[in-house]
Amino acid sequence: MGNTFGNTLHLTIFGESHGTAIGCVIDGLPAGIAIDWDKVSFEMRRRAPGSSPLATPRKEKDEFEILSGYFDGHTEGDSLAMQIRNGDQHSKDYSRLKDAMRPGHADYTGHVKYDGYNDYRGGGHFSGRITAPLTFAGAIAKQILAKEGIVIGAHALSVAGIMDFPFDPLGEEPDLFEKLSSMRLPVIDGEQGAAMEEAILAAQKEGDSVGGQIECMALGLPVGMGEPFFDSLESEMAHMAFSIPAVKSISFGDGETLAGMRGSEANDPMRYENGKVKTITNHNGGVLGGISNGNPLRFTVTIKPTASIGKRQETVDISKKEDTMLSIGGRHDPCIVTRAIPVVENAAAFVLLDLLLTGRRYHYGR
Amino acid sequence: MGNTFGNTLHLTIFGESHGTAIGCVIDGLPAGIAIDWDKVSFEMRRRAPGSSPLATPRKEKDEFEILSGYFDGHTEGDSLAMQIRNGDQHSKDYSRLKDAMRPGHADYTGHVKYDGYNDYRGGGHFSGRITAPLTFAGAIAKQILAKEGIVIGAHALSVAGIMDFPFDPLGEEPDLFEKLSSMRLPVIDGEQGAAMEEAILAAQKEGDSVGGQIECMALGLPVGMGEPFFDSLESEMAHMAFSIPAVKSISFGDGETLAGMRGSEANDPMRYENGKVKTITNHNGGVLGGISNGNPLRFTVTIKPTASIGKRQETVDISKKEDTMLSIGGRHDPCIVTRAIPVVENAAAFVLLDLLLTGRRYHYGR
Amino acid sequence: MGNTFGNTLHLTIFGESHGTAIGCVIDGLPAGIAIDWDKVSFEMRRRAPGSSPLATPRKEKDEFEILSGYFDGHTEGDSLAMQIRNGDQHSKDYSRLKDAMRPGHADYTGHVKYDGYNDYRGGGHFSGRITAPLTFAGAIAKQILAKEGIVIGAHALSVAGIMDFPFDPLGEEPDLFEKLSSMRLPVIDGEQGAAMEEAILAAQKEGDSVGGQIECMALGLPVGMGEPFFDSLESEMAHMAFSIPAVKSISFGDGETLAGMRGSEANDPMRYENGKVKTITNHNGGVLGGISNGNPLRFTVTIKPTASIGKRQETVDISKKEDTMLSIGGRHDPCIVTRAIPVVENAAAFVLLDLLLTGRRYHYGR
Amino acid sequence: MGNTFGNTLHLTIFGESHGTAIGCVIDGLPAGIAIDWDKVSFEMRRRAPGSSPLATPRKEKDEFEILSGYFDGHTEGDSLAMQIRNGDQHSKDYSRLKDAMRPGHADYTGHVKYDGYNDYRGGGHFSGRITAPLTFAGAIAKQILAKEGIVIGAHALSVAGIMDFPFDPLGEEPDLFEKLSSMRLPVIDGEQGAAMEEAILAAQKEGDSVGGQIECMALGLPVGMGEPFFDSLESEMAHMAFSIPAVKSISFGDGETLAGMRGSEANDPMRYENGKVKTITNHNGGVLGGISNGNPLRFTVTIKPTASIGKRQETVDISKKEDTMLSIGGRHDPCIVTRAIPVVENAAAFVLLDLLLTGRRYHYGR
Repeated sequence: MGNTFGNTLHLTIFGESHGTAIGCVIDGLPAGIAIDWDKVSFEMRRRAPGSSPLATPRKEKDEFEILSGYFDGHTEGDSLAMQIRNGDQHSKDYSRLKDAMRPGHADYTGHVKYDGYNDYRGGGHFSGRITAPLTFAGAIAKQILAKEGIVIGAHALSVAGIMDFPFDPLGEEPDLFEKLSSMRLPVIDGEQGAAMEEAILAAQKEGDSVGGQIECMALGLPVGMGEPFFDSLESEMAHMAFSIPAVKSISFGDGETLAGMRGSEANDPMRYENGKVKTITNHNGGVLGGISNGNPLRFTVTIKPTASIGKRQETVDISKKEDTMLSIGGRHDPCIVTRAIPVVENAAAFVLLDLLLTGRRYHYGR
Repeated sequence: MGNTFGNTLHLTIFGESHGTAIGCVIDGLPAGIAIDWDKVSFEMRRRAPGSSPLATPRKEKDEFEILSGYFDGHTEGDSLAMQIRNGDQHSKDYSRLKDAMRPGHADYTGHVKYDGYNDYRGGGHFSGRITAPLTFAGAIAKQILAKEGIVIGAHALSVAGIMDFPFDPLGEEPDLFEKLSSMRLPVIDGEQGAAMEEAILAAQKEGDSVGGQIECMALGLPVGMGEPFFDSLESEMAHMAFSIPAVKSISFGDGETLAGMRGSEANDPMRYENGKVKTITNHNGGVLGGISNGNPLRFTVTIKPTASIGKRQETVDISKKEDTMLSIGGRHDPCIVTRAIPVVENAAAFVLLDLLLTGRRYHYGR
Repeated sequence: MGNTFGNTLHLTIFGESHGTAIGCVIDGLPAGIAIDWDKVSFEMRRRAPGSSPLATPRKEKDEFEILSGYFDGHTEGDSLAMQIRNGDQHSKDYSRLKDAMRPGHADYTGHVKYDGYNDYRGGGHFSGRITAPLTFAGAIAKQILAKEGIVIGAHALSVAGIMDFPFDPLGEEPDLFEKLSSMRLPVIDGEQGAAMEEAILAAQKEGDSVGGQIECMALGLPVGMGEPFFDSLESEMAHMAFSIPAVKSISFGDGETLAGMRGSEANDPMRYENGKVKTITNHNGGVLGGISNGNPLRFTVTIKPTASIGKRQETVDISKKEDTMLSIGGRHDPCIVTRAIPVVENAAAFVLLDLLLTGRRYHYGR
Repeated sequence: MGNTFGNTLHLTIFGESHGTAIGCVIDGLPAGIAIDWDKVSFEMRRRAPGSSPLATPRKEKDEFEILSGYFDGHTEGDSLAMQIRNGDQHSKDYSRLKDAMRPGHADYTGHVKYDGYNDYRGGGHFSGRITAPLTFAGAIAKQILAKEGIVIGAHALSVAGIMDFPFDPLGEEPDLFEKLSSMRLPVIDGEQGAAMEEAILAAQKEGDSVGGQIECMALGLPVGMGEPFFDSLESEMAHMAFSIPAVKSISFGDGETLAGMRGSEANDPMRYENGKVKTITNHNGGVLGGISNGNPLRFTVTIKPTASIGKRQETVDISKKEDTMLSIGGRHDPCIVTRAIPVVENAAAFVLLDLLLTGRRYHYGR
């Protein structure tokens, strides 16, 4: 269980990084949608390693093949299935890992949960590679949302403690999102971006890794998205975010800083502008009572530093049942923030489209 | 939609704060469980206003009535339903609020989503009162988990920027959790607690409010809870947490500080102790790859300052469609951290029991 | 588990016939619907024993109380909860049944499944009384469908082998459905109805019972309801039908007689009439490929004879673990077809409304 | 929506008969199961056309490829995905069908539901071919059940009105099921089987088709499978059965004949045999109150005659919006009962395994 997400759209993911293929099935896409597959490929390339000197030189081929659900240039309305064949796996890199549990990874927990039957190679089903089909599904959602006037963007709010400018809580120009999506390391402030790159390379040299934060924003949301009590916009978005490996926190609006504010500071006053209700500030990040209020949706996730590092670490050998030391060879990302940004962005798009479609049933009789 | 949570246990919540009754239906509790209703009442009293000088003097009666599912001192195995009759509602306190939208609340979003048909009194279905049945369900789960050796506790990590000692990431004595659950304002450091109380009263005098953070810990979890890719332990916990009004962030383990760490610092090394795998540190908060690793589960949520404050605020009157000013009279909590603590704790218990029961299907054939 | 039904609407049922209350929670009703509660009561009275000389004289009070989700004359959009307090239970009638398992009932299966913790009185959660909240939910759906031009009716196709006229497969006047709903024993041919009544009373005199068939028809369905591959119109309707106690078969259109037909006979030819596609016959009962085709939906269920009979039966005493004989005293329906008709009809309405709302998401972008 | 089935196991199906591939994803299989793929292939070959002179000579290749979830000879515990590449499609056979709606098929309903975007070739997603992945998933379940002592079999109860001997309601030897599974036309009475074959060929010569009934039985079920009120054994089985194209009715135990019985005849008396509770008869088909009672589960489905026939039929051309006549060329099954038998059998196995795993959560604390 656990491999399906969504209320109206249903996304089912399958695959292990060193198995035959990874992929997904999306059920619930309305019929008649023309998908721009180039745009989908673009989003997936943003995610793939080997597309940036900052990331790992391992080449993952993310060429996807549509198996069903798309005919004659349009979605058919039944389940859309996709596979990506696995290649360039270098199984020999992982042979040691059958018994030595990598700290910070799911090796040990997966071993116990699945009684040792899980595919340990490359993390198996826990691999970051599984975010490829997630990005695929989100990229489709992103296009559909765009036609509704909803756009999403993300950037590295911080890497290794180095801060970028945050998004303006009251919104940005969609141009900025486009620009960011084309950058190797999406940042608003180029100088900070350069400093981040140096920090990443420095860590890599030392056989270590760094973490960071991703800030994500969605513009153009209608008022009313989200289904309280459970299934609110924040609940659904958080549920999806924590599916992404390495995410360890999520906060909406001003997040943790709200803890130190007064109510008079944190509340967003409202006024009419051109006949529409606007808020003067956006401390709440576009969500109130779990429902979108028309403001930009704004949230931030923490990406922990990559667990696979070259440095020697204390760990256990579960075959010999004794302590051991482990150096993880091979090629690993010293920082997965850059790769995680398109994943977070597109995954968020999937959540928003699901909520948008779910909400349409309320238009009965009106 | 949106009023049901869970994979094996299903919790359905109903009610508006000024409607006839609030309550819930829990489906999936195994048959044959003897529930200590006094303990359930205890957890609910922790939550109720009027049980502490720090909280609002409004008296909510939280006496629950079991409608089904419990017979002859044991759960029957079918759905357990409960209601709490609403009382002490002072509808007149809320008459102004039909048209004037309270900043920071779901008045406006709910009004749009439900076309104005939502019960605006006291926040209707968005009221914090809806956390009563949630606490009830969680309190039942808490007892069942305790028999499995799993205990949960929580405290105010901070209020108004004043910090308490954090929990020891590697665990605490269950005694501490019991002690905290009996405190009006659960803190480890009494002096900080006193300072917090002063800050709350100061805000109240000014017709304002403060926020804070809640840290929650669960001990004794087996290895393997959580269902990747989606439905991981973090996803499910976060999904539940954001159902609780006023929660604006959640972080696991070291949370946001992981963003500034190196991998060599953030990874938790492993070793054998008495034949069991232990980690030397617990930066990851007890979860790896979305699955529990046997360590204490540790997470923190941010509670924003209470939106209902006495101070005048700019807002809109949606009936006249013009800007207006609003002072919210009546009696409101200047800080809902204290009330939210038992909610977070018991809601977390519900999530953990659901995951525990869900995981049992893996024991097929072994 | 198992107490919730639906894709967009979610119906959760609770209660045992001798517990405190029975009821339901309906989540997903759009906001702004004005419900005619008199019509709901009417449907429930059709179902209640004591409303007909043909049924049991036991008086069940089915007065329902709305607990949430309805405010100021309209649905609010959040969960609508309802309870019916149990009364007139005569617990003493059932004391013998703790140990003696009634043949044809769920006494034994429930005892094993729930380890003896189930409420055995009156069948507990397995009682036909649990169909009251189901009828309630369906009655609400029935009204909403009527505003969409969808009407539903049902009659006793047969009782004790005595056949009524069937519905015209190509449709009936809605008047007929109204007329049937007001009859004690809904039949098209009054003479056959009288014969049925005699057969029922005859069986009652002998301490025995009879079964029958219910034919149900829905008019005005749009083309396209149902979600293949799973969740088709037939799958959802059948799923619901078998939730109703005593139902042992369901067939659509010509049902079992299709087994002996040629394709040339069974296919429904199509033609245009006034610009709309019509079929010339309706052997398929209004469903093709699991999707409604615009024809009247037509299905039949078999109701087995009431299991509770006065005649002595061989059974087992699970306390003494030995064979025993059992005569069930008390007052029982000699034929539950009459009571099941409004249940089947209203339950079918619930399914249709759920499918109607589910299908609305396909109108994205058109 | 609608492409996923199950409570603990989740089966998601994808594919159109003339698309790139068909397949499925099964989530929830416990880890550590060794699957005999030869047995799975065997079940699928039973279903495939071209494997019997009684069926169509079209050759469908049903060679499946496992994409994920199986490693080193065992299930891993994550989602098991599979694809079957489509081939031998003869698209030219179907060109006429874009506009001419085949009576008895989902051409018209699918066209309306999906606004004409559905793949009309070969029935697209409505094709009987989609039963291949269903059979695959069920075949896996069948093996797992066998290890639990649960066996399933099916035969043609009737074809073209010619009746086979029914199964003995109190059970059969598992040998019989094995024998039936190896027969081209599974029947108990060989002479009746020969008569059936003649009737099928006779219909084929006339460009027509015949229907029939399939009786299915499961032995060795434990007491207690099924989740009332909804999700009972009958509800789940019926839900699955109606997913299979051409199924138009399902009945349990004595089915429709129960309508004409007295309660004293229909009830199954109970007695102890060797310390176990047995029933003396099995009119109820192994299910009481929606829960298995330890008896053989026995149900029958009606398969309507194949809708695709050579004879000319009246229908409509939805492009020209006028009436037209249609002869369906190509090669079509004159009777799909033989092909449907392994589908029904294996689909039933999937349902039973899902219910078995679902029920295991009740063993908490005992």
